Amino acid sequence: MKFELSATDGAARAGRLTTTNGVVETPIFMPVGTHAAVKALAPDDLSAAGAQIVLANTYHLFLRPGHDVVRELGGLHRFMGWDRAILTDSGGFQVWSLAKLRKITDAGVEFRSPVDGSTHFLSPEVAVEVQHALGADIIHPLDECLAYPASRADTERSLELTLRWAARSKAAHAGAGRSQAMFGIVQGGAEADLRRRAAAATVELGFDGYAVGGLAVGEPKPAMYDLTELVASLLPAGQPRYLMGVGKPEDLVRSVARGVDMFDCVLPTRNARNGQAFTADGPVTLKQARYLRDGAPLDPDCGCYACRGFSRAYLRHLFMAGELLAYRLLTLHNVTFFLRLAREMRAAIVAGGFASFQSRFFARYPVSGGAGEPGDARLSAAD
Amino acid sequence: MKFELSATDGAARAGRLTTTNGVVETPIFMPVGTHAAVKALAPDDLSAAGAQIVLANTYHLFLRPGHDVVRELGGLHRFMGWDRAILTDSGGFQVWSLAKLRKITDAGVEFRSPVDGSTHFLSPEVAVEVQHALGADIIHPLDECLAYPASRADTERSLELTLRWAARSKAAHAGAGRSQAMFGIVQGGAEADLRRRAAAATVELGFDGYAVGGLAVGEPKPAMYDLTELVASLLPAGQPRYLMGVGKPEDLVRSVARGVDMFDCVLPTRNARNGQAFTADGPVTLKQARYLRDGAPLDPDCGCYACRGFSRAYLRHLFMAGELLAYRLLTLHNVTFFLRLAREMRAAIVAGGFASFQSRFFARYPVSGGAGEPGDARLSAAD
Repeated sequence: MKFELSATDGAARAGRLTTTNGVVETPIFMPVGTHAAVKALAPDDLSAAGAQIVLANTYHLFLRPGHDVVRELGGLHRFMGWDRAILTDSGGFQVWSLAKLRKITDAGVEFRSPVDGSTHFLSPEVAVEVQHALGADIIHPLDECLAYPASRADTERSLELTLRWAARSKAAHAGAGRSQAMFGIVQGGAEADLRRRAAAATVELGFDGYAVGGLAVGEPKPAMYDLTELVASLLPAGQPRYLMGVGKPEDLVRSVARGVDMFDCVLPTRNARNGQAFTADGPVTLKQARYLRDGAPLDPDCGCYACRGFSRAYLRHLFMAGELLAYRLLTLHNVTFFLRLAREMRAAIVAGGFASFQSRFFARYPVSGGAGEPGDARLSAAD
Repeated sequence: MKFELSATDGAARAGRLTTTNGVVETPIFMPVGTHAAVKALAPDDLSAAGAQIVLANTYHLFLRPGHDVVRELGGLHRFMGWDRAILTDSGGFQVWSLAKLRKITDAGVEFRSPVDGSTHFLSPEVAVEVQHALGADIIHPLDECLAYPASRADTERSLELTLRWAARSKAAHAGAGRSQAMFGIVQGGAEADLRRRAAAATVELGFDGYAVGGLAVGEPKPAMYDLTELVASLLPAGQPRYLMGVGKPEDLVRSVARGVDMFDCVLPTRNARNGQAFTADGPVTLKQARYLRDGAPLDPDCGCYACRGFSRAYLRHLFMAGELLAYRLLTLHNVTFFLRLAREMRAAIVAGGFASFQSRFFARYPVSGGAGEPGDARLSAAD
């Protein structure tokens, strides 16, 4: 994997990430493909939306259909029919947020599958082995993701565990050749000094890129932005930075301004299934009666199939009638919106106009709340 | 509307139906678009599957979003983004199978909406008015569809009502110009002599084509075939014949052999959502464990997107995980299968080889049961 910075504008960066399966131009948003499918979308939809890389969840694929099945069928790219880049997380976040009866030791974590109640064990070594079987372009070490708030003592203990696991993960990946890149995950909770320690120790271990984990888990928004800015400032300039599980359109803009290159979030896909469409003027909630006879497209600025071919009235009708097509069309639109936002940010950075891009964005896009607003708990990782 | 017979082979017919919105080559299968959408498919999918005409349900659109809304938004073609032919049924079948608290008089039928409990009245004149607002290429008079079995007296009473309503529907449509064709519906239950009377009286009224209603409602399969054959033999050769709500692939083949030109059924779409895929060797039920590691396409004979890009193992995985993409891909495949079957029948008729086509079809396609097999109740019209 190769990462080149094409341009910077303040802390904001435009880069090119060359993976085994294609180039990713950053900043980039990664649609979430929980079970090896971005919900309601096929690979042709993802290509049409401008997706360059998608995320798949190690935890979910480990449980179903099983990483051995995916390997036997030629790996994740072939399995899901997606020939561009794929990133897998380590499974850590889902073990903490979704699995039952977790028993955690230094060796790893034992948990029950919510699918069928069976017991599983995930260690740093197993998580790497699973991700080798899946074959994503970018993989991650098993980490512990603490809920917010957490005590100082718990945060310290957790960080040390994550760092020990990071070292073991790196060792487990060392013999595997270089077709898969591994990103380190910087934890440290809401404590600035622990975030500093986490960043330094993770960079010291040495990875192909760095993820910022444990944010968007309930902390106030200003803390999220401050910690993101702090961690980004401590990471090597020449490597990609990925803010896990973030976020809303305004979070993407503010985080790019703080030096983040990559994002993933279930927001565009999940909200689509709740009838919400993102536009430059803010979200449109289709169940509102005002759209019953609205012949305009969802977003006149958008060139996606949903906006080219259908009215708000029709999309609302499909949503109200529970028609599956509503979910595909709204998801396609939302993913297109997030990816266009990323492309527009990149263009602004390359042109040296990211500050004015931000002004234009926030002049139209309504952001609820402000400083001191409680953070949104991260939208659970099972989209 | 113009209908030309291109070829006949025994009772089987190949025709060309020219509508206001394009040519339909018969025999044809019409995917069911209950709420102005074929479930899980967009118009681009329908085009890719080879659809030339789709059905939409007057009853469902009357209740939601309302025919006035559809008219205001430019009619059904524009509303649903489908620029080829559309057929609407009269709403009769759904009033009988889905609505609550029906009160039927000669004037029409009063019923409660299952959507919101509101009371509605559908008369022959209202059904025509609603269908004028929707603007389909082919519309139908309100009819009464009896359940099977029904007494002789009920069947007679019902048939006379349907015939009176047919005359009123024709009159209501008379002033509307000729951009919408109207088919008459031949009822008459399971009584051969009443079917004869129905056919003669409906033809006497004079319509642009003829639908055979009240079959596939629970009668034995041989009765369905016999009554289809009888009615088809009594209809004008130069006009299209549509067997409503039928059916399985084997029913299509056997009914084309008896002179039917057009079909609709929820089978391919509904069964897709239950994980069943149609192939020339019979249906594949994806939840079966045997497909867990099956790297082959659903149907090696099929060129649809689902078969070109994905394995049975992946489609099974999507289905087991409840992924929406499973419904789209399986529906796309099934609709493609039904439309290819129709095209192959047409080609065989044109080549004068429909008998050998039937032999080849039944040599591969397993048909359960035989003579005396109880009929399948029609798959309810709300797909």
